[in-house]
Amino acid sequence: MNTFGALFRITSFGESHGEGIGVVIDGCPAGLFLDLEFIQNELDRRKPGQNRISSQRKESDSFQILSGHFEGKTTGTPLTFWVKNEDARSKDYSDMANKFRPSHADYTYHEKYGNRDYRGGGRSSARETITRVIGGAVAKLFLKQVSDIEINAFTFSVENISLSAFPSEIYFPDEYTQILNCPDAEIAKQMYDCIEKTRKAGDSVGGIIGCVAKNVPAGLGEPVFGKLHAALGAAMLSINAVKGFEIGSGFEGTKSTGSQQNDIFYLENGKIRTKTNYSGGVQGGISNGENIEFRVAFKPTATIMREQPTVNVEGEETILFPKGRHDPCVVPRAVPIVEAMCALVLADFWLLNKVGRI
Amino acid sequence: MNTFGALFRITSFGESHGEGIGVVIDGCPAGLFLDLEFIQNELDRRKPGQNRISSQRKESDSFQILSGHFEGKTTGTPLTFWVKNEDARSKDYSDMANKFRPSHADYTYHEKYGNRDYRGGGRSSARETITRVIGGAVAKLFLKQVSDIEINAFTFSVENISLSAFPSEIYFPDEYTQILNCPDAEIAKQMYDCIEKTRKAGDSVGGIIGCVAKNVPAGLGEPVFGKLHAALGAAMLSINAVKGFEIGSGFEGTKSTGSQQNDIFYLENGKIRTKTNYSGGVQGGISNGENIEFRVAFKPTATIMREQPTVNVEGEETILFPKGRHDPCVVPRAVPIVEAMCALVLADFWLLNKVGRI
Amino acid sequence: MNTFGALFRITSFGESHGEGIGVVIDGCPAGLFLDLEFIQNELDRRKPGQNRISSQRKESDSFQILSGHFEGKTTGTPLTFWVKNEDARSKDYSDMANKFRPSHADYTYHEKYGNRDYRGGGRSSARETITRVIGGAVAKLFLKQVSDIEINAFTFSVENISLSAFPSEIYFPDEYTQILNCPDAEIAKQMYDCIEKTRKAGDSVGGIIGCVAKNVPAGLGEPVFGKLHAALGAAMLSINAVKGFEIGSGFEGTKSTGSQQNDIFYLENGKIRTKTNYSGGVQGGISNGENIEFRVAFKPTATIMREQPTVNVEGEETILFPKGRHDPCVVPRAVPIVEAMCALVLADFWLLNKVGRI
Amino acid sequence: MNTFGALFRITSFGESHGEGIGVVIDGCPAGLFLDLEFIQNELDRRKPGQNRISSQRKESDSFQILSGHFEGKTTGTPLTFWVKNEDARSKDYSDMANKFRPSHADYTYHEKYGNRDYRGGGRSSARETITRVIGGAVAKLFLKQVSDIEINAFTFSVENISLSAFPSEIYFPDEYTQILNCPDAEIAKQMYDCIEKTRKAGDSVGGIIGCVAKNVPAGLGEPVFGKLHAALGAAMLSINAVKGFEIGSGFEGTKSTGSQQNDIFYLENGKIRTKTNYSGGVQGGISNGENIEFRVAFKPTATIMREQPTVNVEGEETILFPKGRHDPCVVPRAVPIVEAMCALVLADFWLLNKVGRI
Repeated sequence: MNTFGALFRITSFGESHGEGIGVVIDGCPAGLFLDLEFIQNELDRRKPGQNRISSQRKESDSFQILSGHFEGKTTGTPLTFWVKNEDARSKDYSDMANKFRPSHADYTYHEKYGNRDYRGGGRSSARETITRVIGGAVAKLFLKQVSDIEINAFTFSVENISLSAFPSEIYFPDEYTQILNCPDAEIAKQMYDCIEKTRKAGDSVGGIIGCVAKNVPAGLGEPVFGKLHAALGAAMLSINAVKGFEIGSGFEGTKSTGSQQNDIFYLENGKIRTKTNYSGGVQGGISNGENIEFRVAFKPTATIMREQPTVNVEGEETILFPKGRHDPCVVPRAVPIVEAMCALVLADFWLLNKVGRI
Repeated sequence: MNTFGALFRITSFGESHGEGIGVVIDGCPAGLFLDLEFIQNELDRRKPGQNRISSQRKESDSFQILSGHFEGKTTGTPLTFWVKNEDARSKDYSDMANKFRPSHADYTYHEKYGNRDYRGGGRSSARETITRVIGGAVAKLFLKQVSDIEINAFTFSVENISLSAFPSEIYFPDEYTQILNCPDAEIAKQMYDCIEKTRKAGDSVGGIIGCVAKNVPAGLGEPVFGKLHAALGAAMLSINAVKGFEIGSGFEGTKSTGSQQNDIFYLENGKIRTKTNYSGGVQGGISNGENIEFRVAFKPTATIMREQPTVNVEGEETILFPKGRHDPCVVPRAVPIVEAMCALVLADFWLLNKVGRI
Repeated sequence: MNTFGALFRITSFGESHGEGIGVVIDGCPAGLFLDLEFIQNELDRRKPGQNRISSQRKESDSFQILSGHFEGKTTGTPLTFWVKNEDARSKDYSDMANKFRPSHADYTYHEKYGNRDYRGGGRSSARETITRVIGGAVAKLFLKQVSDIEINAFTFSVENISLSAFPSEIYFPDEYTQILNCPDAEIAKQMYDCIEKTRKAGDSVGGIIGCVAKNVPAGLGEPVFGKLHAALGAAMLSINAVKGFEIGSGFEGTKSTGSQQNDIFYLENGKIRTKTNYSGGVQGGISNGENIEFRVAFKPTATIMREQPTVNVEGEETILFPKGRHDPCVVPRAVPIVEAMCALVLADFWLLNKVGRI
Repeated sequence: MNTFGALFRITSFGESHGEGIGVVIDGCPAGLFLDLEFIQNELDRRKPGQNRISSQRKESDSFQILSGHFEGKTTGTPLTFWVKNEDARSKDYSDMANKFRPSHADYTYHEKYGNRDYRGGGRSSARETITRVIGGAVAKLFLKQVSDIEINAFTFSVENISLSAFPSEIYFPDEYTQILNCPDAEIAKQMYDCIEKTRKAGDSVGGIIGCVAKNVPAGLGEPVFGKLHAALGAAMLSINAVKGFEIGSGFEGTKSTGSQQNDIFYLENGKIRTKTNYSGGVQGGISNGENIEFRVAFKPTATIMREQPTVNVEGEETILFPKGRHDPCVVPRAVPIVEAMCALVLADFWLLNKVGRI
């Protein structure tokens, strides 16, 4: 279950404090020009240590291509990337070898597998998302070559500080919008202050990421169990710390009526459009040509800089004294990860749709 | 993509107004006693025509077993169920042959496949969920035999009428609790009135279903892409009309802090428990032994008894005059479907967990 | 494991003496005209009771379509066929309920599953191959629409009576060639006599089927584990009674040298061809545009009309007195099954190849 | 299609003259002690450059573990091995950049993918089998821990020099038996001479590998499409240069009769056995507890040290002047690869069988 996708597949491997993190991309069509600078740039967007409100772990996160790349292009054979771990301070985690950190994966991995790499969360660390960002970057390059699809995620809310709606344009012109990956400068500054205050208090905070995919052609999605939004939901819920997913009108829309919320079809320059987009661009599990819009809920980071009671491997109650480096709010750094998973799903369904009809 | 599950798999087939609806269950272990009465009972829970607030379509929904059942038990070979369509009034849908119903799958199926069975929504009809309820009933029988797992879903909200929290016990003692599948008698009556009022107005309304799985052992879930809640999310989002999924603290929890929301481990009679359950029973994608709790958002039924502007197959703007039978609120009837999909996921991960460790 | 194929998939269900045999075809592209007469004709080719040397079981083997077919064409949703069992004389098999027939699947199913449908072999009966012939017929219709691929299988040998090489043309002009599915009239007559003599002796005999696929474009096959001939091999070895598979020069070619057996490339009207075809049309797991040629070995039918010592379910030695109907040689009736499995593989790889390259 | 297996899965990546060769093993149960020396020893068995009759390429073929290994044991997360290419003389292959080598994968990869790594065959090189040997070594360690299964392959024939039957014991006591992986000293010497003579003539020769798996419990195999011998066949046919597979009586058995060839059940110390083993240990696709015995046909190496006419990338006829290093007969070095693939299949089906029955 470390493989994602039906045709455009990634297989993820590696641990937080082991040798490194790698990904095999299988099923990417041959002949795709690999823009390595773009891929590194995507990786840099999720890198820790970039500002005061992110983890201080220092990693160059530069990748090496192990296979599948020849004369600048993909060959249709497995494309493998490898990112070495550099700043893995395992000693920080020595206390965690036998104490279960609350709301982390320590206890469940221990119960399920018996033998687990506890250093920095091992396999359950968010460092694993490197594989998704690389895979997503290749998927974006693929989508760019075969379509006009554009995917943009952004920080929708941090704690109670929230945008009121999906923004019409998503770009990050200045410092705080860039640090927060939030397009509204004022809101971004408030979010920054909130996170900074939380960090100083040794605490953590949650938030919501929004994502828009534009120019997705009608027809992507494979009913009944491969509905496009079901795949997007699974993709997002597989990201660490995610506790919820909604598309279009989502949970709020449950309070509405059909007459208010049905998306009425009309013609615009001969093209079938809908007047509203409560569907979030997906109807019956298949894209309808409108923007795909969804939101992803992230819980507060489980690691906090406070003593917490817990239980150890021997089954005794104890106290956890936290060490290590962490993000007081994972949301800003998770924005490229949400985009990447969205790109992987769309690339996969783009291929599946090529074989859906004679 | 009409197959769901890795080891305990269902393959769904059939259309709303075709011959019938069927399901092949492959991977159910041999030797399971099939309680046919229980399976029929589960099917009856989702049957239309049971009261004024559900669709008036009359179907006995009685099943025939086509394969895989011998001397009362499963044989380990494909177990196939078949439910004939009886009350399929295709003429009601003649207008829909060429007009795209708003917020339905008509347009997207047309764009994707070209040739589609438009009668009653064809393959995209909620009638397909029969396959899930049957599959889920077999999964429940399996879980009952190998574990103490209990799964209970219920109507959490209809429009603005909502329970305030997950109920401690879920049962339906009287008429309205039974019609609504909501354990609070007073709230259920309010929900009933709301739906009845909506029905009379020719409109529809949405709502939320809650689901609890008790006694799930720690260890179910397959990181990193097969996280238990990612599979539950995909399962729920594959149900018609679902627009959102959240587990544990979900979207509301994004407004909280780590110190408020971390689930502290402690010992209870030697067993490791958590004091709170903001995690919803899943940590790092793996069950931790606490109750699994999630919520599923359903949009208002797209079919309403009102004229709506739309576009037809020829690409002309037109008016849709609705006919046919429908549910003004799908939520009460969807409760057994949510339970069924939850059972299918847990049965599948129960099997996967059997091979996770030496 | 009752599903075959990656994109063009069949899921098989049913037992020899249960309700019937069915198949769900998922992934067949939408818009394919279904020539029902052709499909029935293919089914008739494998039907028992057609002449003295085949089983005397009488089945009309007429199919019903349960789903996925609308206005004469496929809809891209699961296409399901159902063939009822008619002449299922279960009483013939009462003795077999607890005695393991030698070289049958009785013992192994008993050991693996505990509960098995022993009537007529239940799930392990060759009657299951109906699903392959139907699936293969649909695959042939698909290949006909998108390519010039032609698939022809034939009886290559029965016991020691054998063709000397792959025939240049495969057709069955007269009675014995038709009964035997062998293009050489003289050899066919000898095969007939051999089988007839064997039948009278209450014995059975084996043989080899050859198969040629013409006009297969270069590029079908998915290295390294999805090599075209590996998929063909798996497909053929999944047919009852098959004990061997070889492509091109096969086992005989192991006695040769590279200088004798390398297929030299040359140009023919600007097209790259090979002078010989020891490769059997596949190089590096990918079709090269030459004829695909392979052979499949069938053991003698395990059911013979003689007393045989055996062991029963209670673990006691006993004598089996055979009853039931059987084919003294399965090879002639297996010819359409080999063709069907070949068509399924080629349809699947044709679709996979559509997404292999930008 | 670079992934093999359902539960115990390997994903293979890498090219002959790229950075190296790697394999991700996903689904190996947690808690397996990894005997690294054993794994290296298995790798050494397939290493080139070990004697005069194998390729003179010099590779240490020492592996590095990239993930999934903690405190000496598996963790249930992806286990990744990496072997760097050391002696990759790409210049030897400059001529091959645009000339298609006869009976190689050059032309088909070119047609399918357009962009291919031609250096040393790139992805289609037998160097890829490193991944299988490593995966198979881990599978063997797993099988050793959970069962008494023993797998032994050996050289059955080279050209016309052949053993007459499966040997009762398989071990290699002296020089020629070891070089040839053939247990009969006299035959091994003849094989050596044959290969040496062929090598001097600049030619190549084929052969057959036999394989026996002992102590396989009854019950492994997943009908109807996952029959054990179908999976073994697919596994073997995915190895470079393999053109045929047969189990038990195989092709020769087609000349026999049911009364001669049925494997009669009897009791041996209370255990159900068969008197003969024409079935090769598999009946109805499921192991029956007898030895699993199969044979694999390898064509002569396509690379020969002679001029051959061919066609180039520009579509012109030309002459190929061969360079590079190669094995005049791949059979001896392929013996550990056959064993490895067999181990992978058995480990996978061992896990599948754990979930087949309540």
